[in-house]
Amino acid sequence: MVCGRPPYGTLTILSVSKLTDVPKRILIGRALRSDKLGETLLPKRIALPVFASDPLSSVAYAPGEVLLVLSIAGVSAYHFSPWIAAAVVVLMFTVVASYRQNVHAYPSGGGDYEVATTNLGPKAGLTVASALLVDYVLTVAVSIASGVENLGSAIPFVVEHKTLCAIAAIVLLTLMNLRGVKESGKLFAIPTYLFVAGVFVMILWGAFRGLVLGDTMHAPTSDYEIKPEHQGLAGFALVFLLLRAFSSGCAALTGVEAISNGVPAFRKPKSKNAATTLAMMGLLAVTMFCGIIGLAMATDVKMAENPAQDLIHNGAAVGSSFVQDPVISQVAAAVFGDGSFLFIILAGATALVLFLAANTAYNGFPLLGSILAQDRYLPRQLHTRGDRLAFSNGIVLLAGAAILLTWIYGADSTRLIQLYIVGVFVSFTLSQTGMVRHWNRHLRTEKDPAKRRHMIRSRAINTFGAFFTGLVLVVVLATKFTHGAWVALLGMVIFYGTMTAIRRHYDRVAEEIAADEAPSDDSMKPSRVHSIVLVSKLHRPTLRALAYAKLIRSDHLEALSISVDPAETKALKADWERRGINIPLKILDSPYREVTRPVIDYVKGLRRESPRDVVSVYIPEYVVGHWYEHLLHNQSALRLKGRLLFTPGVMVTSVPYQLESSEAAKKRARKRAEWNAPGSVRRGPVERRAKEPTSKS
Amino acid sequence: MVCGRPPYGTLTILSVSKLTDVPKRILIGRALRSDKLGETLLPKRIALPVFASDPLSSVAYAPGEVLLVLSIAGVSAYHFSPWIAAAVVVLMFTVVASYRQNVHAYPSGGGDYEVATTNLGPKAGLTVASALLVDYVLTVAVSIASGVENLGSAIPFVVEHKTLCAIAAIVLLTLMNLRGVKESGKLFAIPTYLFVAGVFVMILWGAFRGLVLGDTMHAPTSDYEIKPEHQGLAGFALVFLLLRAFSSGCAALTGVEAISNGVPAFRKPKSKNAATTLAMMGLLAVTMFCGIIGLAMATDVKMAENPAQDLIHNGAAVGSSFVQDPVISQVAAAVFGDGSFLFIILAGATALVLFLAANTAYNGFPLLGSILAQDRYLPRQLHTRGDRLAFSNGIVLLAGAAILLTWIYGADSTRLIQLYIVGVFVSFTLSQTGMVRHWNRHLRTEKDPAKRRHMIRSRAINTFGAFFTGLVLVVVLATKFTHGAWVALLGMVIFYGTMTAIRRHYDRVAEEIAADEAPSDDSMKPSRVHSIVLVSKLHRPTLRALAYAKLIRSDHLEALSISVDPAETKALKADWERRGINIPLKILDSPYREVTRPVIDYVKGLRRESPRDVVSVYIPEYVVGHWYEHLLHNQSALRLKGRLLFTPGVMVTSVPYQLESSEAAKKRARKRAEWNAPGSVRRGPVERRAKEPTSKS
Repeated sequence: MVCGRPPYGTLTILSVSKLTDVPKRILIGRALRSDKLGETLLPKRIALPVFASDPLSSVAYAPGEVLLVLSIAGVSAYHFSPWIAAAVVVLMFTVVASYRQNVHAYPSGGGDYEVATTNLGPKAGLTVASALLVDYVLTVAVSIASGVENLGSAIPFVVEHKTLCAIAAIVLLTLMNLRGVKESGKLFAIPTYLFVAGVFVMILWGAFRGLVLGDTMHAPTSDYEIKPEHQGLAGFALVFLLLRAFSSGCAALTGVEAISNGVPAFRKPKSKNAATTLAMMGLLAVTMFCGIIGLAMATDVKMAENPAQDLIHNGAAVGSSFVQDPVISQVAAAVFGDGSFLFIILAGATALVLFLAANTAYNGFPLLGSILAQDRYLPRQLHTRGDRLAFSNGIVLLAGAAILLTWIYGADSTRLIQLYIVGVFVSFTLSQTGMVRHWNRHLRTEKDPAKRRHMIRSRAINTFGAFFTGLVLVVVLATKFTHGAWVALLGMVIFYGTMTAIRRHYDRVAEEIAADEAPSDDSMKPSRVHSIVLVSKLHRPTLRALAYAKLIRSDHLEALSISVDPAETKALKADWERRGINIPLKILDSPYREVTRPVIDYVKGLRRESPRDVVSVYIPEYVVGHWYEHLLHNQSALRLKGRLLFTPGVMVTSVPYQLESSEAAKKRARKRAEWNAPGSVRRGPVERRAKEPTSKS
Repeated sequence: MVCGRPPYGTLTILSVSKLTDVPKRILIGRALRSDKLGETLLPKRIALPVFASDPLSSVAYAPGEVLLVLSIAGVSAYHFSPWIAAAVVVLMFTVVASYRQNVHAYPSGGGDYEVATTNLGPKAGLTVASALLVDYVLTVAVSIASGVENLGSAIPFVVEHKTLCAIAAIVLLTLMNLRGVKESGKLFAIPTYLFVAGVFVMILWGAFRGLVLGDTMHAPTSDYEIKPEHQGLAGFALVFLLLRAFSSGCAALTGVEAISNGVPAFRKPKSKNAATTLAMMGLLAVTMFCGIIGLAMATDVKMAENPAQDLIHNGAAVGSSFVQDPVISQVAAAVFGDGSFLFIILAGATALVLFLAANTAYNGFPLLGSILAQDRYLPRQLHTRGDRLAFSNGIVLLAGAAILLTWIYGADSTRLIQLYIVGVFVSFTLSQTGMVRHWNRHLRTEKDPAKRRHMIRSRAINTFGAFFTGLVLVVVLATKFTHGAWVALLGMVIFYGTMTAIRRHYDRVAEEIAADEAPSDDSMKPSRVHSIVLVSKLHRPTLRALAYAKLIRSDHLEALSISVDPAETKALKADWERRGINIPLKILDSPYREVTRPVIDYVKGLRRESPRDVVSVYIPEYVVGHWYEHLLHNQSALRLKGRLLFTPGVMVTSVPYQLESSEAAKKRARKRAEWNAPGSVRRGPVERRAKEPTSKS
């Protein structure tokens, strides 16, 4: 670390992250140095868990949400659940089919933001981006909340301290990602496949027990009753309730778009492999979703929106101490037996896959941020892949928002889900509408009848997708707005406003600094250079600065010292003469022991005398190794530099002198440079144009 | 504000301090621009309140502390109080007489630190400095706590939320001082004289009523009884209790040394005027102290260490809801009548003078810090008078420590005072011992018999002072150590350790960078300069940097661009040729869109090729006006600069381009430059050597 204030942020993070070494090692093992970015492409069997942990994990909460909403009209309304499941399945197939078109049309992995921007214009693109950013925050909050609830079905302590555990999990994930966790394919594959296998074993074993053995399986809540909040709902009210249940079921679709962002990470043929993976993911998700709903019906799971009041056991409400376990764990208890080995394994795998799903947001966020930065909607430094500080800021923002939501909503996945689905469907709808335009545009020029047929088919799929997802968006907005969707919309508005303001700022600056078209600009043509070396004492740093300044042949060179102590100044002058330094030494008095003002005044005076001259100020600087050493050095130099840069016609040159302690900082900087940005695996490697930086004149 | 991270500290403070404008205007009126530093010297009548608000205000709590300790042995022990008062008076005269010698011997205002360092060596000096730093923290905590208690006797709300009000008062004082409140003589004079006058009126009116009119005055607690904690104390235990009561009474002496730091602020003859003021202050303090103790006896004030248990009213303990008002306000209630106009005035004046006393610490701290920085025990930038950021850090440290103590001790002045007196007497004792050595040294060379006589007399006074204050220090340590004095000692050890470490660091660096005695150092002799201008786009900032770099005649000049986007690079090359810029443009590929690493690698490559060359890197930089704009610009430049400075043989030149928005920051910087450091008045003006910075070659 060196000149300029120490990057406190990074340093703090580094020291904090030391604490996370042990859990990190335990969780993901030693970082693999060999599988460097740019050498790995994902085969389908690894790509599936990497991209699908979010949509697959959502079957852990989506079925419960459906039953929960239906319970408002009483247990009798549960018989609508297969119809709602069917509607979700149709929607899932529609969305998957639509995104398969995206994957083929946009193999660059731009995702919904690129599709919307290209086809519908920057405002639609920015809307999608805002929706996705909100979505990432909610992915973290919902997945962690649900993960804690699932873990809680096996470990009661966790659910008793739900908010605390959820926030702790977010903090842990954040620290891991700040540290730069490599998204390793294996890391994702094991828990995801374990989860999928567990759910399938449960569905098959449940079906076998029920249909073949004829066992009657009972969920822990099978002998509970539900007091309907609205008895005998019918007509519009019933339809509205069914639509609300369907909206909640749509939570199963979140994260489907992830693959369309990650096409470059697939092995060749990229688009085809991505489309296949997408189809596999859709098939797995709907099977699991329907299986769990079916088993829930078979084992008489009861879910109530307000379990404390509306869930009746032995004639009395269960009260606020009752913990309503997720549907998946109730079903597992019925099928495998509560507390059995397989039950525990499934609960653990569910929690783990949900935590991985939350982690995908940490990977997706910097990717989207980088694309937005490229379009100047976010600070430029986000554009650089692996800019640790920039990513850190983004990750801290993401985690802060997720923690805030978790805290406000008491880590209650049911309440958080109300916010979740809006953003997803905003981006689905705009993306699919964009695809329709895309095909229209291509059809205008395409002559080949075979290709045209193909395009027309794709357009039909996307049109249906746009229509259906748009309809769902309206349903979600209508049924969820007051339940919390307005919070998500507010978040989108804030992101949209901020990004628009940033873009406007960059545009304004770009206009201000644009060079005139005339090849030479008169105001840019200075005539001579007046160099000044700032001197306090004659030690090595000063001698080096004097030697360097002498080497550069400026029109006028002098040394300048600010006299804050007459004795020191006298000693300096004597030393100067004794060493025979052939540079004139000018001394300015500073009765208040100020350094900055006399220098600024002097430089301004020079500029007044000859306005076309450039003043070049050389400042010897110490390079130190620890943040606390910064407090002891360079502070006046730093302040002086800051002030000098305001003065027109000035150049400020730092001549560094590396103290021994700077070695420590150098090592730290090297370590930081080796850091892996989150999201690198799912983005796919960059095509390296040359092994070593090559030069072209 | 400009390049380099924005000084968040300052900015935050600035925006916060906007809030304090109103209370500040209310409290001290509009800042007087005309009475600039260097034009005001204090007449005695203003110097007295400026320097004496601390010792004078201590009579608001010291008498109560004496009674409180005596009450442990029951009300009968109160008859010892005149003897204790007498001992405090003798001590006060001794200390005042001793410091009159200091003032004459050290007219430079170095104070105890200078006296101890000069005569007893740097370790003794550093001990004194540590003691004084702790003392400043406690001055704030004790004065504010006592001020809140006094205000509480008139406004019950304040004492009911004692800790909160005390911390709010500290925060307010801190904000005022961060903003740069001018210590104005008038500001101090009015409340201090009002307080002194109020106390004298009270004493005289009380004496008149009691002795002439024969009224019997009753304090609010006159009909209370005290349950002694130790009945019938005698022998050693009684002596120990009396010594403890005396130690508490010594709180009246805190702040006496302030005048010896402020001699340069007096009108001529400085030393004589300072000595006279010191005598006046001592006389006022002892009169007030004795008067209040006398009135407390006459009006039967009862003070108990644990009022809740030990104070008995109508046969029952008063309980924890009882608020024990300070002696001064109980006496005022007896003499003037509770809630009467004069009572309220005196309570207000007492609170105000105590807040002013707390404020003196905010002024004293940077002064001492500046002297310690000169001796390299604290960061160098503290040395500069008016370095706002440095002072801010010191003030925040002071306030933070005071708030912590206030919070831990529940703003209880009685418990805080246990910590207070140790530091004061450490510095008294060492300073007086130093003065004895001072006279011994001078006596060795002085031949003039008149002067020798004078010196021998001074030495006798200082010897007695050293002996007496040393004795008190031993008494204080013995009687207060377990009551809290150990906390103060711990604070001193921490300050001592930190300052020693800082000094050691500076010494080590000084050794490392010391230039060899040989007039020319081979390693310092580079041979040629290779200049590199970093280019991203051809806009005005870049064109300016190119023009400046061309002006400086280096041996080799080239432009360097990092290609993060092939399209942008192509556009840059085309623009370069179109404009006919006659500087070779080198382009480095960066597949990961990194900027820092390719540049560093390239520079290192150049250095490897010709190790005796110097590489000069020119970086065009935007100068922006608001902190949030920093997040949008210069971040990569900043990081690159940081890394480059680690590379030996490199110079880094910032070529600033002032954006329009930078005007805002320029104005702010100018405003900041006009800021007045706290403590400037009490330090006295610097002798300005010249009106304008003059130059001597």
